[in-house]
Order: sequence, then structure tokens, then C-alpha cells
Amino acid sequence: MKVVALAGGVGGAKLADGLARCLPAQDLTIVVNTADDFTHFGLRICPDLDTICYTLGGIANPDTGWGRAGETWNTLEALKTLEAPTWFQLGDQDLATHLERTRRLAEGETLSEITQFFCQRWGIQVRVLPMSDSPVQTIVETDHGDLPFQEYFVKYRFEPSVRGFRFEGATQAAAAPGVLEAIESCEVAIFCPSNPWVSIDPILAISGIRQALLRARVIAVSPIVGGKALKGPAAKMFEEMGIPPSAQAVALHYGSLLKGFVLDVVDADQEVQIRALGLKTLATDTVMKNPNDRQRLAEKILAFARQELKG
Amino acid sequence: MKVVALAGGVGGAKLADGLARCLPAQDLTIVVNTADDFTHFGLRICPDLDTICYTLGGIANPDTGWGRAGETWNTLEALKTLEAPTWFQLGDQDLATHLERTRRLAEGETLSEITQFFCQRWGIQVRVLPMSDSPVQTIVETDHGDLPFQEYFVKYRFEPSVRGFRFEGATQAAAAPGVLEAIESCEVAIFCPSNPWVSIDPILAISGIRQALLRARVIAVSPIVGGKALKGPAAKMFEEMGIPPSAQAVALHYGSLLKGFVLDVVDADQEVQIRALGLKTLATDTVMKNPNDRQRLAEKILAFARQELKG
Repeated sequence: MKVVALAGGVGGAKLADGLARCLPAQDLTIVVNTADDFTHFGLRICPDLDTICYTLGGIANPDTGWGRAGETWNTLEALKTLEAPTWFQLGDQDLATHLERTRRLAEGETLSEITQFFCQRWGIQVRVLPMSDSPVQTIVETDHGDLPFQEYFVKYRFEPSVRGFRFEGATQAAAAPGVLEAIESCEVAIFCPSNPWVSIDPILAISGIRQALLRARVIAVSPIVGGKALKGPAAKMFEEMGIPPSAQAVALHYGSLLKGFVLDVVDADQEVQIRALGLKTLATDTVMKNPNDRQRLAEKILAFARQELKG
Repeated sequence: MKVVALAGGVGGAKLADGLARCLPAQDLTIVVNTADDFTHFGLRICPDLDTICYTLGGIANPDTGWGRAGETWNTLEALKTLEAPTWFQLGDQDLATHLERTRRLAEGETLSEITQFFCQRWGIQVRVLPMSDSPVQTIVETDHGDLPFQEYFVKYRFEPSVRGFRFEGATQAAAAPGVLEAIESCEVAIFCPSNPWVSIDPILAISGIRQALLRARVIAVSPIVGGKALKGPAAKMFEEMGIPPSAQAVALHYGSLLKGFVLDVVDADQEVQIRALGLKTLATDTVMKNPNDRQRLAEKILAFARQELKG
């Protein structure tokens, strides 16, 4: 079964890893949000791509979900002595990724080409694609003004109250090579349990992607479990946008794009309302605490896709 | 006695450190070559400024003369796994300097301002000035084509044969704030035992600096001892430019700019010819193996300046 997964950072990376453990490599394409990307100290940093690749390459920090296992922080410590901004955690090994990406971009390589090269170096077999090779920037509109995503998320620890989102450059940005083709030829597209507002929505904002998905079988996995986000500000964002956070709210958020929806067993009481939206549902354990959980969830979702969405 | 020292990297840094140990901080200005500066992985790297500042700040690697003491190489090791160019040795702590410099330059600060800030952080009391705040680039013309200095020096280990030098941007570049004033008000200007072709000459090429030095009392310290360079390609460059390397050749190279010349005792037989050029001379131990040597040489040079150049 040909599968496309749309993913943001840590939560998306876990399910992407689970899917990679279940599917032949040539059957899985992961399309990654790049609207969190930013330039810091002159370096181009792509947090979600890095989290996805480190996870798939087995070199991610298992405790945090982001950054690299066995990371050291010598440069960051030296930056502190220079009173430099150190709100973004730059590990010594992680820095090499940013340095080499920046160097290759300056030499004219595309983000897709660089990502493909990194995947090859890290032994990643499945296809990882940035959503676009053009820069797109999530701006979080807050009660403290407009903030680029990383500042909102890391520097201000998502404390400002959200009023809206915009994805600068998205409508002019073309999907990266292979993205539309992968969606058009897939048997199922999976929205990973990533933040709908700032991880999946930016991908959907890229020219042509939403249209391609409307012709696909799409299953979303709820990142809201028991009314809370497993990680990050997703639940807080729903609340501040005036919507009580719930699995159902996630299903409504994606609306007519979806054919199926995966929610946690703790939210099974919402299945009736979600089915009333015309969606097939799967209630299962969605919390991924270890690699086995990832694989188990991926297997369940793929079985659900095979059985329920055939018709 | 107000002193200005012109310096390149390791050799210059040693004498600059010796002078800083002898003079009240407000009496010493060090003007540093920045024509070796280059952009690597998107970062602005200023090798000579860093060597000077690390040395003056007491944080230089005492074994190499460049880089930082207790340095680690975790990012460089990770870069190797990405098949990135690693011919330039980027230490983890050194990287912080490049990152913060790059960030501040992008924010609109000048190289002078950034250098002043770094000096303050590193407890450096004497004034360290880049020769210019504008980019100047040494191009080494070789039998393997034109090479930017760092590529010639580090990547190709100064193996290509030299045919000439040019300092791109030098004539349009203004001296950094304070440089001309320091030269105009100094009692003695010292050319450190740095490479005449690629460390001191680029400084002299900056608009106004040579003219200001013509009105100053200038003493050069020979970087050629016993016909050889203590470090780097200075002797090889003299040879390839058709000039047998010697202390006398260095004196002739600087020509009418000089009033005095310091050579090593092993070259004392050249004193007669150098005096015949109209220069006062001091033959002394010029090889600086430790901080005591630096201070002793600086004291000798300052005493020489006081006695011989008064008239």
C-alpha cells in the first residue's frame, strides 16, 4: 500500500518511524512541514525535517524527541559567555547539520536535494520530502504581536495568546518535487498526530497540496488526547481560537479533507459524533512511548485503512 | 610611549601579547589584518583577529598558537560524517565566536564594534582594531590559479607556487575607526613578525594607512630568521617571488616606511647591510617560545625605540 504521511516534529516523527517499520521503504513518502524553518546565526535551521530525519535515522535523542542522542553543548556554552541569544538549543552535532545545509543551499542545492543527501548519509530508506523548496514562514498572531514560529514556540515558550496564523510565502511556494505525485498516487494519506494549526495546516497551504488531497483517501490521527495535547501548544491553540480542544475538534478542523479519523481510546465517547461527520473511525491507543508503540499504532492505522477505506 | 602594532596571526599575536605585558593598556593599539577573513558555511571567520584576541585573552591554544585552549571538535566530527568540507579546523568553542560575529554583522554591527565587544568579554584591555570594517580579500596568484588566502593556506597547505598577491577591496576600504588616529598619534609603530606579503601588506594597502605610517616612526621585526620563516609560507613566498629570504629582504620589502629594524641574533651578519639602508637596527633573540620570551622581546624593542629613534 502506497502511503503518504504529512508530519511536523516530534509527534509526527514517532508515527513516521512506526510507518517506516511497517511498510516497504519504496511505499512510504513523508512530507514534512518546513514553515518552522528559520535563519539563526546565519544558519538555515529546519527543526521538523531534522526531528523527522534524526528519528528515522535512529540518531534522535530518545528523551526529548528532538535533537540528537549523545549530544554535547560546547558551542552553546561558549555562546553564553558571549551573551549571545541561546534560547534555541544548538547542540554540537546538530550544528553540523545546520552548517552543511547552509553551505549546500549557498552552493545552489535545493532543500529537497540536501534532505535526500542527509537521508542517505543517515541510512534512511523511506522518502522524506520537505513540503516545499521555497521558504515559507509561519507567523503566529498573538496578543504580544506577530511572532515568527520559533520565537513564539521556543523563545516565548508558547505563552502569548494566539489570535491567528499565517503562512508567509505559502501560496507562492510550489510543492517540492515528488510531493504532488506522491499524494496523487498514494492509496492512503495520513495526517500524523502533529499540531493541526502550525504543522499540518502550513503543508495544506502550499499550492496544489490541498487539491491533491481532496482526491486522496485521507486519515488524520488526533494529536489531542483527553482534551490535551501530548506535546506542545495544540490544545492551547484550539482554546485560544475559541474551540474546546478535543479529538472531534481536530476532525472538524480538517473537515471535508478527511475520509477516516484515528482517536485515542480515552476519547471513544466522541466516535459517534465524528462518525456523524461521515468519517470512518478507529479508536485505539495513540500514545507512543517507545518504538514498539510506534509500530503498533502504525500497524493499526494501516489495517484500518485497508479494511475501512477500501470502498 | 604610545605604540601601534600591525599584526597578522600567530607570530603577530605573540609579540602583541608581549607588548600588552609591557605597556599600559591605553598606550597600545593593535591593528589586525582582516584580508584572510572569509565566509565558510555561511559564517564570517576572521582568523587573525581571533588568534590575536584569543592570545591576548589568555584563551589561545598554547601548542598551536591558533584556536582555543581545551578546544573540542564535536561539530567537526559530525561534519565529516556528512562529507562536508573540513579542511578548515572549526572547534566547538571557536564556532561560537564565528556564530555570534555573523549574527551581529547581520544585525548591522561593524566588525570594529563586535571586536570591541568580544575583547571586553575576554578581559582584553588593550585596543584591538580590525584594519577595516569593509571586507578585503587576499587573493594569492599561484601556478594553480588564483586562490583565496584560506584555501591557499589551509586547504592547499601553501603548496602552490606564488606569482603575486592582490588585496581585493583594499583601495576602496576605509581604515576602521581609530586606526589612522592611532597611527598619527603614536610614538612608534611596530610591524610584528608577521608575513610581510599576506599579513602586513594588506594592512598597508588600506586607503590612508601607508601615508599615515610614512609620518610615523616605524620599526619592523623580521619574521625571517636564519633564512627561514618561523611559521608559515613567508620564506617560500620570498623565494617564489625571486628574492632570497633573509632579514635584509624583509627590510628591503618595507623600504622607506621603516626607521628601525629588529632581526634575530643569528642574522647579525646582515646588520651592516640593513644599516646601509639608513635604518637603525637591533639584533636580539626574536624567537618567542613562551610568554616570558614575548615580554622580553617586547621590552627590548621598546627600549630600542626609546633610545635609537628619539632623534
